Amino acid sequence: MKPVTAEIITIGDEILYGQIVDTNSAWMGTELTKAGIKVHQITSISDNPEHIVSALDDALTRADVILMTGGLGPTKDDLTKDVLTSYFHTELVLHEPSLADITAIFARRGMEVTQLNLEQAMLPAACTPIRNVLGTAPGMWFEQEGKVVVSMPGVPFEMKRMMSDIILPQLKAYFSTPEILHKVIQTTGIPESILAAKIENWEDSLPHHIKLAYLPHLGGVRLRLTGHGNNATTLEQEMQQQVDKLSKIIPNYIFSYGELTLEEAVGQLLKERGLTIATAESCTGGFLAHKITSISGSSAYYQGSVIAYHNEVKIRELNVKPETLKQHGAVSEATVREMAENIRLKFGTSIGVATSGIAGPDGGTPDKPVGTIWIAYADKDKTRTKLLNFNKNRLLNIEYAALAVLNLIRQSLVATVEE
Amino acid sequence: MKPVTAEIITIGDEILYGQIVDTNSAWMGTELTKAGIKVHQITSISDNPEHIVSALDDALTRADVILMTGGLGPTKDDLTKDVLTSYFHTELVLHEPSLADITAIFARRGMEVTQLNLEQAMLPAACTPIRNVLGTAPGMWFEQEGKVVVSMPGVPFEMKRMMSDIILPQLKAYFSTPEILHKVIQTTGIPESILAAKIENWEDSLPHHIKLAYLPHLGGVRLRLTGHGNNATTLEQEMQQQVDKLSKIIPNYIFSYGELTLEEAVGQLLKERGLTIATAESCTGGFLAHKITSISGSSAYYQGSVIAYHNEVKIRELNVKPETLKQHGAVSEATVREMAENIRLKFGTSIGVATSGIAGPDGGTPDKPVGTIWIAYADKDKTRTKLLNFNKNRLLNIEYAALAVLNLIRQSLVATVEE
Repeated sequence: MKPVTAEIITIGDEILYGQIVDTNSAWMGTELTKAGIKVHQITSISDNPEHIVSALDDALTRADVILMTGGLGPTKDDLTKDVLTSYFHTELVLHEPSLADITAIFARRGMEVTQLNLEQAMLPAACTPIRNVLGTAPGMWFEQEGKVVVSMPGVPFEMKRMMSDIILPQLKAYFSTPEILHKVIQTTGIPESILAAKIENWEDSLPHHIKLAYLPHLGGVRLRLTGHGNNATTLEQEMQQQVDKLSKIIPNYIFSYGELTLEEAVGQLLKERGLTIATAESCTGGFLAHKITSISGSSAYYQGSVIAYHNEVKIRELNVKPETLKQHGAVSEATVREMAENIRLKFGTSIGVATSGIAGPDGGTPDKPVGTIWIAYADKDKTRTKLLNFNKNRLLNIEYAALAVLNLIRQSLVATVEE
Repeated sequence: MKPVTAEIITIGDEILYGQIVDTNSAWMGTELTKAGIKVHQITSISDNPEHIVSALDDALTRADVILMTGGLGPTKDDLTKDVLTSYFHTELVLHEPSLADITAIFARRGMEVTQLNLEQAMLPAACTPIRNVLGTAPGMWFEQEGKVVVSMPGVPFEMKRMMSDIILPQLKAYFSTPEILHKVIQTTGIPESILAAKIENWEDSLPHHIKLAYLPHLGGVRLRLTGHGNNATTLEQEMQQQVDKLSKIIPNYIFSYGELTLEEAVGQLLKERGLTIATAESCTGGFLAHKITSISGSSAYYQGSVIAYHNEVKIRELNVKPETLKQHGAVSEATVREMAENIRLKFGTSIGVATSGIAGPDGGTPDKPVGTIWIAYADKDKTRTKLLNFNKNRLLNIEYAALAVLNLIRQSLVATVEE
């Protein structure tokens, strides 16, 4: 069965000029995908009648559903409704229920309805109006030769409410959509190319109706399996079998089979095991603590931190031995080991972790170039250290180092094989 | 003079399926607009050869410059390079400098280069390769009948570096773009609507060729003046006069006349005055320290921090009196005042600052709802405290509070009028 395809057209200069980020399309993309409708293209254009018509013409040659947002406001630079009225060879007529909605909104705000807003209740005779309970611009649903064109306001919460309440259910009813399932497997600590080489045979053996995508991002590669089928239960089983196979190939690199972040996954591990943690940071300057405390409920396992940006603070607050600093320097395995072990003792936690490195852009030496970062993990049984060198810019070095510490915690707690 | 027009084509299912939000296009839209190039359309498509070709064909009928991102990774779902090689009737040849860059990246990571990554140095003979100093996928610059097609990786920091260093300067040189000057005035501590009312008369008096844009963002409103003209020197003078007028209207809300962030502006102030600072954080959990240490050279004024997530740590490490905690609670003016004063004494710095609050989503009470955050500033002469209540989500509460502390430092050091 051929999948139902959709295109999204967003109208308005503010997206083209970069004044706002188009988060509407990502939200619609997620919802349409979940509904089994394949998004084929997203197009952002300006409020220009010819451009709207040509974008719509083109989209209708490719897709079954066109979802348009924007250009429905009451001011004269909003042209979408007039363009669609002419496009579908129809005329504007008063839509009484929309008039009542608009009047009610102004009454709630204690204001007089303006003439411009009253005109928003004039809608193309050929469309099915879509009620807007949160604003003054109704949506419009057109059908033509088995295809659907929908126009919605660009205000995110108005659009989302219309999509959830009316448009998505109507689309699912209008087209009988096939089953599409997604499974996400999140990896960290392995570059995309090496991961790809490791799982190449598995990837090549995937059945034709299950596809793999690599989604690399800061600190990891997200793998997404997308399966198409007619029976949700069978498809779910087939996909789970593939995930199980994959997890045997790269057990230590997977930290989540869903949307959990690395800091959430680590937080869950600590909580499940009743462990507490404290941090001692030099080069990451608080970012590691921030990642940990960005998770709601982290106070259950997180005690606190000493950020020791200066050597004097490392000595006084973290009991790093002056001779260690003198002999090995602040950026060294010996120093970061003492930092992790001592913060654990100082704060009385199960685990202590530490960072010390050269975030850049200055401070590098031939021996220890910018990006040289030592990290350490200490618990009652062992201390593990790791040397990183990402050589990114300052902020990225800081972020990567914090993620590497989170992964070191995870691996120290769960990994069965030394990586 | 007809404006130079650009289109952006982003390639990759992850945008269509809504798994990532397309922030690249907004960034490119902003930079192209600043360079005097008009963005005409943004198109997001999947990694499909026919679709890439038809999107490119269409874009070339409308615009002078086509900027493509994505589909340049080493794996087999990345098809952009092969499609462009065939589109421009050329062939792949080894590009030695890119090979050296790729090899160097792997050498720095202490890893063996994979065959897949080596193949990333094979580039179309017809293109001018664009160096990627941050990743393994070089960019490509094609010219055809006076038009330019550029392909870049989709990884944001790699794309941004390429655009800033190479592509934008080359586009300005290739097309002779008109004079457009921008001046940015950054404000903080005043909501957009109140700011707009305060500067309304000034805004209305601006000459026709100088336009004002309000760009609100987390923690402030950025004002951008854009001037069009034929003579850069005259235009620069005219715009500077307008900025001077504005700075007399809202002196205490402006922290920068350029791209400086608030943390950079505060860092400069501390450096100029030879002051040092230490932080004591509860609810911000390291994010304030991170903001301060995200600035290169911050070790000149930043000593370190105690993150006291638990009351016990507040007592033991920050000498907060147990009776203060008992009588007023951790989230109180009295506690945050002791935290700021004591971290200053403990670390021997000129300034101590502190945060204590309820970031949420849990932990609120009728008396102290989620978002209740006390901040404090202490130096040898005075202690200033401030109660915040943003009532946003956890991360936003944390970020707003850190920015409010930075602004409290700035105001304590420079403000001539109490705000």
